[in-house]
Amino acid sequence: MKAYLDCYPCFFVQTLNTMRLITSDEEEIWKVLKAVSSFLPSLSFDATPPEIGREVYRIISDMTGVEDPYREVKKRCTQQALDLYPDVKEKVKKAGNSLLAAARAAVAGNIIDFGAQAEFDIKKDLDRILKQDFAVNDFERFARMVKKSKKAVYLADNAGETVFDRVLIEEMAVPVVYAVRDKPVINDAVIEDAVEAGIDRVAQIISSGSDAPGTILGCCSDDFRDILKSADLIISKGQGNYEALSEVQGPIFFLLKSKCPVIAKDIGVPEGSIILMEQKKYRA
Amino acid sequence: MKAYLDCYPCFFVQTLNTMRLITSDEEEIWKVLKAVSSFLPSLSFDATPPEIGREVYRIISDMTGVEDPYREVKKRCTQQALDLYPDVKEKVKKAGNSLLAAARAAVAGNIIDFGAQAEFDIKKDLDRILKQDFAVNDFERFARMVKKSKKAVYLADNAGETVFDRVLIEEMAVPVVYAVRDKPVINDAVIEDAVEAGIDRVAQIISSGSDAPGTILGCCSDDFRDILKSADLIISKGQGNYEALSEVQGPIFFLLKSKCPVIAKDIGVPEGSIILMEQKKYRA
Repeated sequence: MKAYLDCYPCFFVQTLNTMRLITSDEEEIWKVLKAVSSFLPSLSFDATPPEIGREVYRIISDMTGVEDPYREVKKRCTQQALDLYPDVKEKVKKAGNSLLAAARAAVAGNIIDFGAQAEFDIKKDLDRILKQDFAVNDFERFARMVKKSKKAVYLADNAGETVFDRVLIEEMAVPVVYAVRDKPVINDAVIEDAVEAGIDRVAQIISSGSDAPGTILGCCSDDFRDILKSADLIISKGQGNYEALSEVQGPIFFLLKSKCPVIAKDIGVPEGSIILMEQKKYRA
Repeated sequence: MKAYLDCYPCFFVQTLNTMRLITSDEEEIWKVLKAVSSFLPSLSFDATPPEIGREVYRIISDMTGVEDPYREVKKRCTQQALDLYPDVKEKVKKAGNSLLAAARAAVAGNIIDFGAQAEFDIKKDLDRILKQDFAVNDFERFARMVKKSKKAVYLADNAGETVFDRVLIEEMAVPVVYAVRDKPVINDAVIEDAVEAGIDRVAQIISSGSDAPGTILGCCSDDFRDILKSADLIISKGQGNYEALSEVQGPIFFLLKSKCPVIAKDIGVPEGSIILMEQKKYRA
């Protein structure tokens, strides 16, 4: 998905939010804002949000020397999610359709996001989403694909959300390769974050080779692309992975919450919807 | 008031909103966004929002050749306000304190703003604000100053809001010079807009000489600065004029609604508050 014009102000908001985690020195923040502002005009009109985000966060990291500004935030979110894990497992177990409940739990985890929206309440949203209907609902087809899958790839999104991904992976009962970002970007999960969430107990964790906040195939390693090609089921979590893969062919299911007006408009659903959507081109 | 860092994303939103009035050609809008993005790093850290706004709207106007993108919007807002005028006059007349009610009506008009917030409902907000308490309330002092004033200057803000300014000027019963922007910027009133609101019947309309969305003294004409110096009462309407004059000494009363988090924080009130505040330094 190409960036919408409305994405551009958002990159400044994201820069501000991230810089405020790093420093309270307004002049230092101003220098980074100016650098981001100078960089944007070099972009192609067709750039995708993860491509732009990658460069914006690289500017922040290069200028401040802070490689992972969200490290502490990510640890806290993961711990908070782990505290909720037993309760979520119990709810999924008791649900009429455990795989459906687990998919909803995984989407609920998608609210843990410091890019698209900086404020959220995991517990409150979780309870609501476990009862919420998918606005795009390809669950029946998803359940059939899970049943016959022999090798699934799960594209991770944010740290903390990882714990809820684990719940879905456990219900899938399929061999899963869990792909995370190669380097820290926003609060997206890297290997360390996935291990803290206990994903290593239920899946093989690998790096996609990309440091963009979305699985941009051109930025990924050859090894990862081979793994992706050989998968019979790909679960793409979150907005960033949707933005990177919305035009890519493959047995992809997008599992996300539409947290910003741009994504909601692109998918054609109200903001705040939960989505379980099979890749349209692949389906046709 | 120096621009807060949070103002910078907002200039991109304002550019987008204004460009969408001019064209639906996304690539043309993108060119202007890029030009604004290239311009921002040249700013001083201490620039005020009206100084920045002036340049941003100049870029838009220069690149598109459209000098007054809000012309139709302003006409419509003025007409809408004129339709409400008899009802507002009636309410002010019936109020226990007509000057206070007229000041509230003038603030209610301040919601007509395509810079700080693009969506509003004049009629609904008017009814509410006519009953709302000022969060900063220097009305008693204001009423005394009005009583003894021989020459007041009223610094206009947006077109349409002008009609409600007229209500306050009528209640003041003081000779008033009504100063508007020299050239169109956002939906701020120029002479034509003030005349359409009927201000010429109750005050002398002049241009401040400035084309910034706020009365930046350095951008104003010598004539206007002389008039301002000779005034014994200055009413500064809206956020832009507050941003430009918050550090300037004088018998100034700021009359505005805090429509964005930055202004609310600067004044120390909740967002959405109405303010009638005497210039602090002058008072001390």
